[in-house]
Amino acid sequence: MIRVAIIGASGYTGLESIEIVLRHPEAQLTYLTALPEECCRADEAFGSLKGRCSMTIEPLHLDKLSRQADVALCCLPHKVSMSFVPKLLETGIKVIDFSADYRLKDVTVYEEYYQVEHTDTGNLPRAAFGLPELFRDRIKEASLVANPGCYPTGATLAIAPLLRKGLIDTQTIIVNSVTGVSGGGKNPSPVFHFPNMNENILPYAIGSHRHMPEMEQIASEVAGEKVKILFQPHVGPFDRGILSTVYCDPKTEMSVEELGELYNDFYGNEPFVQVLDGPPAVKNVAKSNYCHVYPTIARGKIICFSVIDNLIKGASGQAIQNMNVIFALDETLGLA
Amino acid sequence: MIRVAIIGASGYTGLESIEIVLRHPEAQLTYLTALPEECCRADEAFGSLKGRCSMTIEPLHLDKLSRQADVALCCLPHKVSMSFVPKLLETGIKVIDFSADYRLKDVTVYEEYYQVEHTDTGNLPRAAFGLPELFRDRIKEASLVANPGCYPTGATLAIAPLLRKGLIDTQTIIVNSVTGVSGGGKNPSPVFHFPNMNENILPYAIGSHRHMPEMEQIASEVAGEKVKILFQPHVGPFDRGILSTVYCDPKTEMSVEELGELYNDFYGNEPFVQVLDGPPAVKNVAKSNYCHVYPTIARGKIICFSVIDNLIKGASGQAIQNMNVIFALDETLGLA
Amino acid sequence: MIRVAIIGASGYTGLESIEIVLRHPEAQLTYLTALPEECCRADEAFGSLKGRCSMTIEPLHLDKLSRQADVALCCLPHKVSMSFVPKLLETGIKVIDFSADYRLKDVTVYEEYYQVEHTDTGNLPRAAFGLPELFRDRIKEASLVANPGCYPTGATLAIAPLLRKGLIDTQTIIVNSVTGVSGGGKNPSPVFHFPNMNENILPYAIGSHRHMPEMEQIASEVAGEKVKILFQPHVGPFDRGILSTVYCDPKTEMSVEELGELYNDFYGNEPFVQVLDGPPAVKNVAKSNYCHVYPTIARGKIICFSVIDNLIKGASGQAIQNMNVIFALDETLGLA
Amino acid sequence: MIRVAIIGASGYTGLESIEIVLRHPEAQLTYLTALPEECCRADEAFGSLKGRCSMTIEPLHLDKLSRQADVALCCLPHKVSMSFVPKLLETGIKVIDFSADYRLKDVTVYEEYYQVEHTDTGNLPRAAFGLPELFRDRIKEASLVANPGCYPTGATLAIAPLLRKGLIDTQTIIVNSVTGVSGGGKNPSPVFHFPNMNENILPYAIGSHRHMPEMEQIASEVAGEKVKILFQPHVGPFDRGILSTVYCDPKTEMSVEELGELYNDFYGNEPFVQVLDGPPAVKNVAKSNYCHVYPTIARGKIICFSVIDNLIKGASGQAIQNMNVIFALDETLGLA
Repeated sequence: MIRVAIIGASGYTGLESIEIVLRHPEAQLTYLTALPEECCRADEAFGSLKGRCSMTIEPLHLDKLSRQADVALCCLPHKVSMSFVPKLLETGIKVIDFSADYRLKDVTVYEEYYQVEHTDTGNLPRAAFGLPELFRDRIKEASLVANPGCYPTGATLAIAPLLRKGLIDTQTIIVNSVTGVSGGGKNPSPVFHFPNMNENILPYAIGSHRHMPEMEQIASEVAGEKVKILFQPHVGPFDRGILSTVYCDPKTEMSVEELGELYNDFYGNEPFVQVLDGPPAVKNVAKSNYCHVYPTIARGKIICFSVIDNLIKGASGQAIQNMNVIFALDETLGLA
Repeated sequence: MIRVAIIGASGYTGLESIEIVLRHPEAQLTYLTALPEECCRADEAFGSLKGRCSMTIEPLHLDKLSRQADVALCCLPHKVSMSFVPKLLETGIKVIDFSADYRLKDVTVYEEYYQVEHTDTGNLPRAAFGLPELFRDRIKEASLVANPGCYPTGATLAIAPLLRKGLIDTQTIIVNSVTGVSGGGKNPSPVFHFPNMNENILPYAIGSHRHMPEMEQIASEVAGEKVKILFQPHVGPFDRGILSTVYCDPKTEMSVEELGELYNDFYGNEPFVQVLDGPPAVKNVAKSNYCHVYPTIARGKIICFSVIDNLIKGASGQAIQNMNVIFALDETLGLA
Repeated sequence: MIRVAIIGASGYTGLESIEIVLRHPEAQLTYLTALPEECCRADEAFGSLKGRCSMTIEPLHLDKLSRQADVALCCLPHKVSMSFVPKLLETGIKVIDFSADYRLKDVTVYEEYYQVEHTDTGNLPRAAFGLPELFRDRIKEASLVANPGCYPTGATLAIAPLLRKGLIDTQTIIVNSVTGVSGGGKNPSPVFHFPNMNENILPYAIGSHRHMPEMEQIASEVAGEKVKILFQPHVGPFDRGILSTVYCDPKTEMSVEELGELYNDFYGNEPFVQVLDGPPAVKNVAKSNYCHVYPTIARGKIICFSVIDNLIKGASGQAIQNMNVIFALDETLGLA
Repeated sequence: MIRVAIIGASGYTGLESIEIVLRHPEAQLTYLTALPEECCRADEAFGSLKGRCSMTIEPLHLDKLSRQADVALCCLPHKVSMSFVPKLLETGIKVIDFSADYRLKDVTVYEEYYQVEHTDTGNLPRAAFGLPELFRDRIKEASLVANPGCYPTGATLAIAPLLRKGLIDTQTIIVNSVTGVSGGGKNPSPVFHFPNMNENILPYAIGSHRHMPEMEQIASEVAGEKVKILFQPHVGPFDRGILSTVYCDPKTEMSVEELGELYNDFYGNEPFVQVLDGPPAVKNVAKSNYCHVYPTIARGKIICFSVIDNLIKGASGQAIQNMNVIFALDETLGLA
């Protein structure tokens, strides 16, 4: 049994992580922590855990962590995360970090987009980028995994086969995404107040979303050349899920059939990426770790669609998938 | 042209009031006020006013008010309201107050339910209860109207004909209501955070909702005897509307036809109360000042359903209806 | 491994059953059937099964069924069900029937409410009513289980402790429920067309819902006397869940503490019924087999609230719970 | 008083048109028609009209129409429309047609996209394209107005200033839109069944939507050269509204300020097009005839956002705006 600690268990990704581990046949929750002011019984923090989890969310003590856990899922926000991760790593356990702090390899880019100084550049090189479908080998060896952002997960899975084969112009990619509101976290705000957000849809973070450089980094790594992406996020009136519509320019002519074949070859062995032969729907992946992709061609452009659950494949599910990879378990355990 | 001031224009009922007056052929907005920290252009406070209202929401000055307005719609919360209303009345203008401060005739009940001392008992007797379908004559004469609560509006219209005729047991009435989230106002809170409230429905204020004594007061006045009501509110995942399901015990046997006739007689001349011959639906009254009622009989009980828009017939629309009554205009102006 | 067949796998409860069995460690799907015109790959019928279930939904052949399954979950509508169940039982396998055909012990009541002749009265006495919290012993022995209706599950769990102890008037119970739209099944209709149902809530089946006599039957059995219930259902703008608000008259005075104690005693060992000490919320049980109940007192009435997921505790989850009981497995397997 | 007939009054755009005319101070409804099987009282067809409209929807008789109406709003689907419009025109009244039948000037394109033969090419040249902000002068003179599609209205208003001034590459425009479900009309279907569409978002009509050539036609006319547009529509879980995100390549460098100035100059006198200086939100234009546009620049691309209510500015509201233009009334009458 893998002993799992969840650091920052009081938010939405904490809850999702708890629920997945509760169903995982080879893992068990041993330690839930949060900031002192958020500590309480887990089933008081989340009514849905009533009868399912009687643990208490406690303040973090490193010695307790090192004694009780084999892996920590670190569900803290950026900046806070890098102040804890070095200590977590020192205890000798594996760390899967949900924040952005270990995702961007270029510290300058990190500091520009997150507007804070990076205080743990020493551990940056150790961090494997936790998108198993693209970087599984590195994750296997890692003690620190930077769990990807939700948007980059959906968007890069949508176009990875094309990037890998060099089939599209890498300077003209447009990623248009719509996320559900849970992506904004659990803290109330005017824009996510129900009567404001319900029956609404709106763009935000125009030209400035922090997931844009992350997408570019992954895409560039897959393509083997510097990729430029224009990423435009929107938020819509639903809880879960991200739909990404990615517009690309093909370098050479290709048929829809060839495109489908390329994707089926690329993802044929991947349990969690399903290549569809028609438009995807967010609802079909809600509450699951699956990513549905659909590449097609319209008026000379390649359009690649992808859908994921932002809290699962875009966060907690992917973290458990990474955990399964690290501990050499069947990658789908707890996630089927 | 009636000159209308809106005091407390920065909340949901303020916005609804603005929108209705903009469409009113015999009224015009002349003054919008709010607390200093909420003052700004009206179309900055509410994006939906862009191009429709270029006024600025300003701090309240009584002399300006007295010079520029014939009537003030006072959209302030309880307790705040009674600190302003005496001053508004002194300027000589009519006041339609949205708060609970002038609704409950029994100060002891007010102080018990609102947990504050009543500081303007002097004006209480002047206040007409602003439910035109039941108290039109008093409203016509009033300089101060206590605009009713949203739940009491829907619930009492649902059973007024039965109460007036003494046809039901006045001690066993149960009002089960579901409101949309706008009823909770514009301030963000965890329970109304979109990912918490969406796909949810829940009861609240069990046995303690402040609208319960208000319902009992109106019902008692209509019935001519002391009425007891058990009121249970719930909040559901939609913006607007209240559905009330009212369970009553008939004193004598009655047929559904007699019931329908009673209601049609009672409300036959009322433009805004429509008696249906089948179940109502909240959506049919959304964004309107209408109340749909449907009385029927099941297993020996009378069940009366009513639907209203909580922000319109339950607040701003009813206020304008009251204004029309006071100024002897066609009661439907601005509300059709 | 228990081999599970799902008869009528093409509807919402079929899908839920498939998903639960896929996660069940001691059960496996061996046979999915539907009407010939609905037969296709399971992942074509339900996009959410892509990559998770490659089975095909086939026409039913009894010999294949008898060879391949230990238990059939029969997700057919009423009337259709009783034409298949006798044949299923003849194959010697266990049958858990989702329809109403074997729930009502009184054939006259069945025929009045369902407006069809009962064609399998011979098997009626064999059928155990599948609410494990109340009738576990009989289910253990049964070869045919009548899986309860969604509303009766929620409503009777809400008041069973009071009925068992004879603490409430059994002739004045009112059950006011709101269901999500999935309760209406997968067939499109005007009332459930998104632009009609969204932002709406409405009552239906006034005094005539088919689950009313079912509630009365269970309640009477628990109480040991004939119980009368006025049941009023409503449908609201959300996918899943039923909130029931049950109004009862206590026979003798009781404190809220005594009430809580009574419920905790009654349900203390039940994994799936959780007694809360505050108002429940539908969202906390969505996608789970849990029932949250909250009994309290207001103005001399006892009000009992319960929430369930109509498709899980109200249908497919409860069926699997019954299957676990029949096969002497841990009752929570596949449902945690 | 302008006498208004609504032909095809039984659908969503019929209802919206009725509601707008009811509020219009210079117009009155005189005749509502529909197919015989859809004829009934208007308030039976639409519960929201109860007490507001006591007219009956009747079968169409041309002589009655010619006697009773000055203008017909023809809310019929494409193909049906062109079989009625010639007859309507012969009666001598003005016709505002909601279908696509008179929008596309190129019959070949029409027949390719709509897969029917055009049977009234004779009246095509008479039809003014009913987007007043772009083609007001022609509408003034017209007896037949082709009321625009919802998507083309939002998308072309978003980029018209750039097209008119020749500032963007006309061959690389991408229009990414999300519509509310009312855009799909009133007929129930599996995809718009509430439990399927709620909590969902999905793309459709990839590379093939019928509004694509309509957008290209308008855009080409505004630009004075042939424009190519890749249009990708999606449908999201809300009733009303279209958000369009339009990606364009600027021909020369431009600042955000210059862009804003260009738009303010272009739309400065338009009552219904409001240029924002930040991201728009669909909810701010719901139930209104307004279009909010926001042009900005990100990573070298110009991104233009627009929001409209698909049933109002995208259909019935724009029709009334066109009617006001034709009859030389204040363009905002009935629409404020």
